[in-house]
Amino acid sequence: MPEVIFCPGKTTEQVVEIFDSLAQKGNNVLATRSSEEIFKALKNTGKYQNLMFDNLCKAILLKQQDLPLSKSSIPIVTAGTSDLPVATEAKITAEAMHQKTELICDVGVAGLHRLFDKVEQLQSANVVIVVAGMEGALASVIGGLVDCPVIAVPTSVGYGANLGGISALLTMLNSCASGVSVVNIDNGFSAAVSASLINKRAEDAND
Amino acid sequence: MPEVIFCPGKTTEQVVEIFDSLAQKGNNVLATRSSEEIFKALKNTGKYQNLMFDNLCKAILLKQQDLPLSKSSIPIVTAGTSDLPVATEAKITAEAMHQKTELICDVGVAGLHRLFDKVEQLQSANVVIVVAGMEGALASVIGGLVDCPVIAVPTSVGYGANLGGISALLTMLNSCASGVSVVNIDNGFSAAVSASLINKRAEDAND
Amino acid sequence: MPEVIFCPGKTTEQVVEIFDSLAQKGNNVLATRSSEEIFKALKNTGKYQNLMFDNLCKAILLKQQDLPLSKSSIPIVTAGTSDLPVATEAKITAEAMHQKTELICDVGVAGLHRLFDKVEQLQSANVVIVVAGMEGALASVIGGLVDCPVIAVPTSVGYGANLGGISALLTMLNSCASGVSVVNIDNGFSAAVSASLINKRAEDAND
Amino acid sequence: MPEVIFCPGKTTEQVVEIFDSLAQKGNNVLATRSSEEIFKALKNTGKYQNLMFDNLCKAILLKQQDLPLSKSSIPIVTAGTSDLPVATEAKITAEAMHQKTELICDVGVAGLHRLFDKVEQLQSANVVIVVAGMEGALASVIGGLVDCPVIAVPTSVGYGANLGGISALLTMLNSCASGVSVVNIDNGFSAAVSASLINKRAEDAND
Amino acid sequence: MPEVIFCPGKTTEQVVEIFDSLAQKGNNVLATRSSEEIFKALKNTGKYQNLMFDNLCKAILLKQQDLPLSKSSIPIVTAGTSDLPVATEAKITAEAMHQKTELICDVGVAGLHRLFDKVEQLQSANVVIVVAGMEGALASVIGGLVDCPVIAVPTSVGYGANLGGISALLTMLNSCASGVSVVNIDNGFSAAVSASLINKRAEDAND
Amino acid sequence: MPEVIFCPGKTTEQVVEIFDSLAQKGNNVLATRSSEEIFKALKNTGKYQNLMFDNLCKAILLKQQDLPLSKSSIPIVTAGTSDLPVATEAKITAEAMHQKTELICDVGVAGLHRLFDKVEQLQSANVVIVVAGMEGALASVIGGLVDCPVIAVPTSVGYGANLGGISALLTMLNSCASGVSVVNIDNGFSAAVSASLINKRAEDAND
Amino acid sequence: MPEVIFCPGKTTEQVVEIFDSLAQKGNNVLATRSSEEIFKALKNTGKYQNLMFDNLCKAILLKQQDLPLSKSSIPIVTAGTSDLPVATEAKITAEAMHQKTELICDVGVAGLHRLFDKVEQLQSANVVIVVAGMEGALASVIGGLVDCPVIAVPTSVGYGANLGGISALLTMLNSCASGVSVVNIDNGFSAAVSASLINKRAEDAND
Amino acid sequence: MPEVIFCPGKTTEQVVEIFDSLAQKGNNVLATRSSEEIFKALKNTGKYQNLMFDNLCKAILLKQQDLPLSKSSIPIVTAGTSDLPVATEAKITAEAMHQKTELICDVGVAGLHRLFDKVEQLQSANVVIVVAGMEGALASVIGGLVDCPVIAVPTSVGYGANLGGISALLTMLNSCASGVSVVNIDNGFSAAVSASLINKRAEDAND
Repeated sequence: MPEVIFCPGKTTEQVVEIFDSLAQKGNNVLATRSSEEIFKALKNTGKYQNLMFDNLCKAILLKQQDLPLSKSSIPIVTAGTSDLPVATEAKITAEAMHQKTELICDVGVAGLHRLFDKVEQLQSANVVIVVAGMEGALASVIGGLVDCPVIAVPTSVGYGANLGGISALLTMLNSCASGVSVVNIDNGFSAAVSASLINKRAEDAND
Repeated sequence: MPEVIFCPGKTTEQVVEIFDSLAQKGNNVLATRSSEEIFKALKNTGKYQNLMFDNLCKAILLKQQDLPLSKSSIPIVTAGTSDLPVATEAKITAEAMHQKTELICDVGVAGLHRLFDKVEQLQSANVVIVVAGMEGALASVIGGLVDCPVIAVPTSVGYGANLGGISALLTMLNSCASGVSVVNIDNGFSAAVSASLINKRAEDAND
Repeated sequence: MPEVIFCPGKTTEQVVEIFDSLAQKGNNVLATRSSEEIFKALKNTGKYQNLMFDNLCKAILLKQQDLPLSKSSIPIVTAGTSDLPVATEAKITAEAMHQKTELICDVGVAGLHRLFDKVEQLQSANVVIVVAGMEGALASVIGGLVDCPVIAVPTSVGYGANLGGISALLTMLNSCASGVSVVNIDNGFSAAVSASLINKRAEDAND
Repeated sequence: MPEVIFCPGKTTEQVVEIFDSLAQKGNNVLATRSSEEIFKALKNTGKYQNLMFDNLCKAILLKQQDLPLSKSSIPIVTAGTSDLPVATEAKITAEAMHQKTELICDVGVAGLHRLFDKVEQLQSANVVIVVAGMEGALASVIGGLVDCPVIAVPTSVGYGANLGGISALLTMLNSCASGVSVVNIDNGFSAAVSASLINKRAEDAND
Repeated sequence: MPEVIFCPGKTTEQVVEIFDSLAQKGNNVLATRSSEEIFKALKNTGKYQNLMFDNLCKAILLKQQDLPLSKSSIPIVTAGTSDLPVATEAKITAEAMHQKTELICDVGVAGLHRLFDKVEQLQSANVVIVVAGMEGALASVIGGLVDCPVIAVPTSVGYGANLGGISALLTMLNSCASGVSVVNIDNGFSAAVSASLINKRAEDAND
Repeated sequence: MPEVIFCPGKTTEQVVEIFDSLAQKGNNVLATRSSEEIFKALKNTGKYQNLMFDNLCKAILLKQQDLPLSKSSIPIVTAGTSDLPVATEAKITAEAMHQKTELICDVGVAGLHRLFDKVEQLQSANVVIVVAGMEGALASVIGGLVDCPVIAVPTSVGYGANLGGISALLTMLNSCASGVSVVNIDNGFSAAVSASLINKRAEDAND
Repeated sequence: MPEVIFCPGKTTEQVVEIFDSLAQKGNNVLATRSSEEIFKALKNTGKYQNLMFDNLCKAILLKQQDLPLSKSSIPIVTAGTSDLPVATEAKITAEAMHQKTELICDVGVAGLHRLFDKVEQLQSANVVIVVAGMEGALASVIGGLVDCPVIAVPTSVGYGANLGGISALLTMLNSCASGVSVVNIDNGFSAAVSASLINKRAEDAND
Repeated sequence: MPEVIFCPGKTTEQVVEIFDSLAQKGNNVLATRSSEEIFKALKNTGKYQNLMFDNLCKAILLKQQDLPLSKSSIPIVTAGTSDLPVATEAKITAEAMHQKTELICDVGVAGLHRLFDKVEQLQSANVVIVVAGMEGALASVIGGLVDCPVIAVPTSVGYGANLGGISALLTMLNSCASGVSVVNIDNGFSAAVSASLINKRAEDAND
């Protein structure tokens, strides 16, 4: 497991101090929902070499471990382009946990043919992450196509009766497809942790 | 248009009295969300011959007009067997408006293959009614498959975070497929009125 | 159908890239909830001639098809001036689908006489779009006056117990007038798609 | 003011005891949301002569004062027949406060012509009570037709997105017509108290 | 009645244009929830002399009628200083309707002694407006102290479980004191219209 | 502390078994939200002598400890008679914790004079429990009158916008009086535990 | 995967008919949220030998496959005795999927010592199911103790601000422990499917 | 008790004026949810010497009383660093009431070992304040570890299904540990007042 900092509500000084103390343990360090300001403050300490900042999801990752990636890849599927920031948070988190991932974008249910091109790939996975806003129906559809666990991430993409993501969240919780479990709205991080733990056990077992 | 009575909150006496006065206009009369008790009270008046009662949706229909049914049929699609009462209310309402209908049951998104057998039939319709509870994803999927208007009816089938049908309602309102409009939870009646008006205009026009 | 991009949550670069790939199909392209910045970026590519930007609803429309407009017009009725941005999104969308529209503004239920001047016009339509915020009562009143389908669009105009448009949404979903179906809050786009599909079928049929 | 008991949550014994102690003050006594069981228990005490029970709204009224009714009448307008229990609670309460009332039933907005027959009557009142469930649009329409205060009572008549009356409540609170104020769902009692106080002052003043 | 414009969602140009057309009728014109920018734009037209702008509640009032104020005064009671903007909107609205008002500030229920100094004044009124945020308990307490109608205005003052004023709104709707009716959150305007209509009838009657 | 069983969701057999195992520890045993059936089943075991059942709040108490009651009494104040079941649960719980209590009933804010007779008594307490439904304003008023901590219990007494007690809960959470903390709706038990712990420490300290 | 029927909203005849057609495929058949009436109707067909009915969770299971159970066991942990019906649904579902399970009951966070006795057992699992109502804190605590995925099931055990399980649901979705994903309220079935798929892959891999 | 001003919704001028009038009473004065601008305005009056401003929680404190602090300390426990602003508001409030406090930070339930180091300290307190956002489970865990009253403060730290702190609020209200009572979201002030009143009585008693 990487060390993790959830940045909102913390001052830049507080994040830098916590980051420093966590980094000393030697694990990867991940700061989610960060800002460019915090990234620069960390950079300016001059302490970190492998420090990267993702501008879409505002995550900072310090790689301190050089373990090989998993052999099987975790598909991260999004309904639309607007779901990319959340999918990217999932991708970076999984990488911090040494898991290979594969982004499959823009395959929402209004155009099922795009999804069907990817079915085989999805069916060979140990676990699938589905990221969708608006009505979030993609999780149910994928849940019906695969026989591995699906981790569903509702996003706040949408407006009005979307209620800041509550609509997609409820959709996923009520999924008529079995094998779907759900994390908090926009929580790419948590989805990736669950998926990584699942993928890891399936792989470790295979060794 | 048939004469319509929404029964909840009315005493049997009130319904019978209203029914009598409406029946005298000579149109079909439809009493929704009724009860067997009300049906028997109407029966016992001895006034009505063509009086039928549907036990699934508790609707009473008095047919007084013998107009031919529409040529093209309105598909009424349900996600599951539990959505049948609502679909039946839609069916009876459409019939009271002289529209042919076709029930397509149990084609929820967790098993898309069952839906795909029906695609051609759906694509040839002037309008489609989709009835679904749980997460209500079926409306979006069908919306993406047809190019006619879709009237979506969320049902209260489900439990917990289903919130009495609110989950399916929100799903349908946030549908990423265009051409989907929505009626109240379990409101098979209103969906059928909208769909009948659409189907009628498309047909009338063709004459 | 035009090609459509929902802009929120996408970077300017992403929208431009998607716009380019969609434009190549030769259909009209519509980008909703856009921004002047995106419009300028598209303009600056020098690729598009018939590119227009509506400042009220922030929609970008690229007209690439020169089909004749529908003969019958779709009335788009608003309760107040503040509902105009949503009504305009509906108008532009309908036009992108080759439908004639007619804006009827500021005829909210607090002054029914203004509405009554327009009743004949409404009663001759194949479908009516009603756009209203605050308590959204206009949809029910119009639903009682016409015998064609009504597509109701709740808007977020209002404050307090308006709950960002939820109040008008609930009003419309519970409409005691039949033949009213509803789209998401502020979703002028979706209302126009449904209405255009209805109007088209009624007209095509007449040919 | 009459003495008033709100019965739910109280045992029959508790209501009888409270009723007895209140009756001794000599004012009218009103027990709302009561039951036939409580009525019989009061009857059986043999203490009360002018005791009446209304079966629709479950109110018990003991008339102990013989004051003349107000000269001007308070119109109590309902959207539908199912709103009658609440309208009746309002009627009985107003009578307990010596106010004349006039029930105007079943004039919901889906059939405005029925309402328009009553406009003159409404416009001559000092205050109007509007009782409506479903989407509750009637309050706004009447608010736009009269220039006296309107007391709006949302009812729980409806289902699904009606949310037990919340939909009508929100509609009334967001009314675009001015001069409309609102009481709790199904609270015919409180509407009648407010309206009676208003009517009384307008009349007293005239003496 | 004054002419009224609700400004949010309207451009400055739209407000100025509407204002101009309403002003020509010769009545007072009130623009609520306006802005200094709109006020200046109106000022700059050079058309209006008696134009005032209230900075607390952002209302613009054009006085074109010189009628005498009512003899009896409407008390506008606030729980705290933060409720003043809403109370001021009520005050200006009442004045535009030629009603005398009296602000009684900062008498919230946590310090009842401050309220008790004002009881006599409240008890001599024809109607009382109560403006309160947080838990909004003041309306119930005043409702128990006076025997005239109380118009309660919940405000959005507060945070957290205040839910933007919903807490105070619910409190007032559930008031155990009778004779309390409620308007939308922060809706000082509507409270003043209701109260003015009541006060006017009580006074007119007295003439 | 007594041993406690929360009965809902448990079968009679389960409650009896748990009760038996807890009783063996020698402490008082309290079963809340129980039923007469469970009480009889416990009675029928023949094991318990000091077993009592309160019919109002459905609590079963087995007294096995004979400690003296506290010297100072905890006032349990209710707004209305319908709040008595919750107040009684608090009373029995406090007694199971060896605290003296005093019920002060029916002193809701619509009639403040009844409350004012009790002020001195309230001001001499170490802690006060306030039990109120409807709008729950009593907690704020008492919080403003005493300078000891107030434990507020919202009850589900009411209807409509009361939302099953949510209204009173929000009122109490937003109390403008300081020193008020809140427990779950109808949770007389938890209020009594908090109040007893407070009273105990204040007394122990005095010894 | 077993064949599964969700019974609510279906008539006994419908369930029996669906059961029959599913049973013919030769897999295990599971009917959740059933009733004794349905069980007897199935029994009476005389077709099924290995038919069992669980009275706590109302599930019917027809075992038609005799595969060996998994080697590693899935712990199903409950906060309290009242959560047992949901836990039992999970247990039966997992067994229908050939997974060994282990019920660990009544280890809620108010008494952490009972949980700590089980930590080792939990830490050796491939996946843990946590079933908790009230405030649902147990999922977070266990999530912090193990490094395998946790499937959290909120239950509707509780009252008042529990909101029918919404409280526990939100708790689990907002868990500060990573690796926790959530299913619908009371959905023991779905939790077991997810957990079984995870456990299976981990085991299969080991073979 | 200190004099207290809740600043939101008040202009700088209003706060300064209120502050001045309260300061003349000679008690400590606390202005919560203030701003640096207000602090400077007060500073610039030149009237106050012991005026401090806390930048984390934006509180202004004027110390005018030099009473000794309490002997026993009130632990203020936070789940994470982001909860510090609320904890600091509690700390300053308690100090304004002459109570000693002790901040115990970052001991959330995902890492229980950090909490367990502090158990003894918590168990020796008269009252504990728990400040937690996200899922707010810490209150239940601490409630199970101590036998003194716990005042729980939900914070708005979190996102998505956190609903601005509602999730943590519900968690705490439904706590399965007894002796926990709750204040409004982010209301460090009110928690500190309750806790100070409790601590004071326990101490006073000991003298």
